Amino acid sequence: MTTEKLISEINRKKSFLCIGLDVDLDKIPKHLLSEKDPIFAFNKAIIDATHHLAVAYKPNTAFYEAYGIKGWRALEKTIQYLNQNHPEIFTIADAKRGDIGNTSRMYAKAFFEDLGFDSVTAAPYMGKDSIEPFLSFEGKHTILLALTSNEGAFDFQTKAIDGMEVYKTVLETSKGWKNSKNLMYVVGATKAEYLSEIRTIVPNSFLLVPGVGAQGGSLSEVCGYGMTEDVGLLINSSRGIIYASSETNFADAAQIEARKLQQQMEIILDAR
Amino acid sequence: MTTEKLISEINRKKSFLCIGLDVDLDKIPKHLLSEKDPIFAFNKAIIDATHHLAVAYKPNTAFYEAYGIKGWRALEKTIQYLNQNHPEIFTIADAKRGDIGNTSRMYAKAFFEDLGFDSVTAAPYMGKDSIEPFLSFEGKHTILLALTSNEGAFDFQTKAIDGMEVYKTVLETSKGWKNSKNLMYVVGATKAEYLSEIRTIVPNSFLLVPGVGAQGGSLSEVCGYGMTEDVGLLINSSRGIIYASSETNFADAAQIEARKLQQQMEIILDAR
Repeated sequence: MTTEKLISEINRKKSFLCIGLDVDLDKIPKHLLSEKDPIFAFNKAIIDATHHLAVAYKPNTAFYEAYGIKGWRALEKTIQYLNQNHPEIFTIADAKRGDIGNTSRMYAKAFFEDLGFDSVTAAPYMGKDSIEPFLSFEGKHTILLALTSNEGAFDFQTKAIDGMEVYKTVLETSKGWKNSKNLMYVVGATKAEYLSEIRTIVPNSFLLVPGVGAQGGSLSEVCGYGMTEDVGLLINSSRGIIYASSETNFADAAQIEARKLQQQMEIILDAR
Repeated sequence: MTTEKLISEINRKKSFLCIGLDVDLDKIPKHLLSEKDPIFAFNKAIIDATHHLAVAYKPNTAFYEAYGIKGWRALEKTIQYLNQNHPEIFTIADAKRGDIGNTSRMYAKAFFEDLGFDSVTAAPYMGKDSIEPFLSFEGKHTILLALTSNEGAFDFQTKAIDGMEVYKTVLETSKGWKNSKNLMYVVGATKAEYLSEIRTIVPNSFLLVPGVGAQGGSLSEVCGYGMTEDVGLLINSSRGIIYASSETNFADAAQIEARKLQQQMEIILDAR
């Protein structure tokens, strides 16, 4: 999907909500466990109930790999369901991959070609040649970890290299990589005040912002510091939406939580 | 597997060779493509021909994910084959994972419990709480990226934070994490001269060293700078061994290349 198409969907739906499909069999409603594929049944119900309120879905691959082949099949079915029924949805494989060049190319093939995702998250530690193979795919996006929402972000990301924090060095350096126009960045919402400085480095790039809700970040703060003319934000919520209820009404409950966020987003978009 | 068991296998086999099972269907012998599971057939033949010369095998997950469910099944069959037939082999899932705590726990479950690997490689960018979930598994090892063998290593890893390079900061910081005794580190052989400094920070930890062979590193240099009393090294070779021939004799050719490395290792071990 092109960035232009994503922006047009955001304006049409008045939403820049991304829903994280982090499916844990210990947390989904018990009645689904008798389904042939409980993970996909859960995802399908969540997607059916929320697709008009969200512009993106983001399965985190860890939750699928933990169930082996069954999990991988559920991931395949989920992305196929999205691509077939909701081609207007921006899909994100939250995989945080990164390896030497020929290996990153295999990951890019896995997520962009075999599975058919629009984008994949990637870790910057191994540098340029670990990311450029992802960037070479036309119409696909690579979402690079910059500043994450967890406590461990302060171990290395916020430390300074020659007076510039590691996460800013990552942002600055990555701008020089080939096809860097295909880059987006992960920036945790729990550090909203960092966003204005980040915008001086990447004024127009899309930022994927996890950590609103369960992890404590504030939507209005994130938008205040990080929104661009073209919005430039995808705000992710996972647990707060998909686990809003563990009863048979879970999809309705997810819709209610997604609508709350969408309505806040609509107000913010209209107020621009 | 315990570290003690690994050390005893190194001494018994007079080898600290790790063979990387990075299986690319475009590179394996053509006659295998008619097999029901060409990837597993290839791995099985390589393992059968080399298991007495190596102490570890390291499938890189990218090469399996690129083939979707077929690939994941081949990975499962490979690790099962190793665990059932060669329980003395140290197995490494080269996955370079790392995510927020509850997500890293799912990855740990995937590789340690579901698949049954002895160890997994992990990326340090997200810090302590992204790695500690891996470290909490008793008898399992987490191999943290420190200094990788690719060109992009110079983008961030060798830059200095307060006078100490990022990769050294990673080494130093990680020593303070809970269950850090379960840590090993990835250090690329193409930077052998860095190993003596690395040994001042982690004098006893096992280092997984890729980049000997195809990527140009020298075995004797690596051993000169990095070997400890308990050896403390696993030297990985992938392409140089598994693609030594693309004909029907590929397993014999792989054995010849593995034996060359094992014999060099035996000389080095005997000379201590």
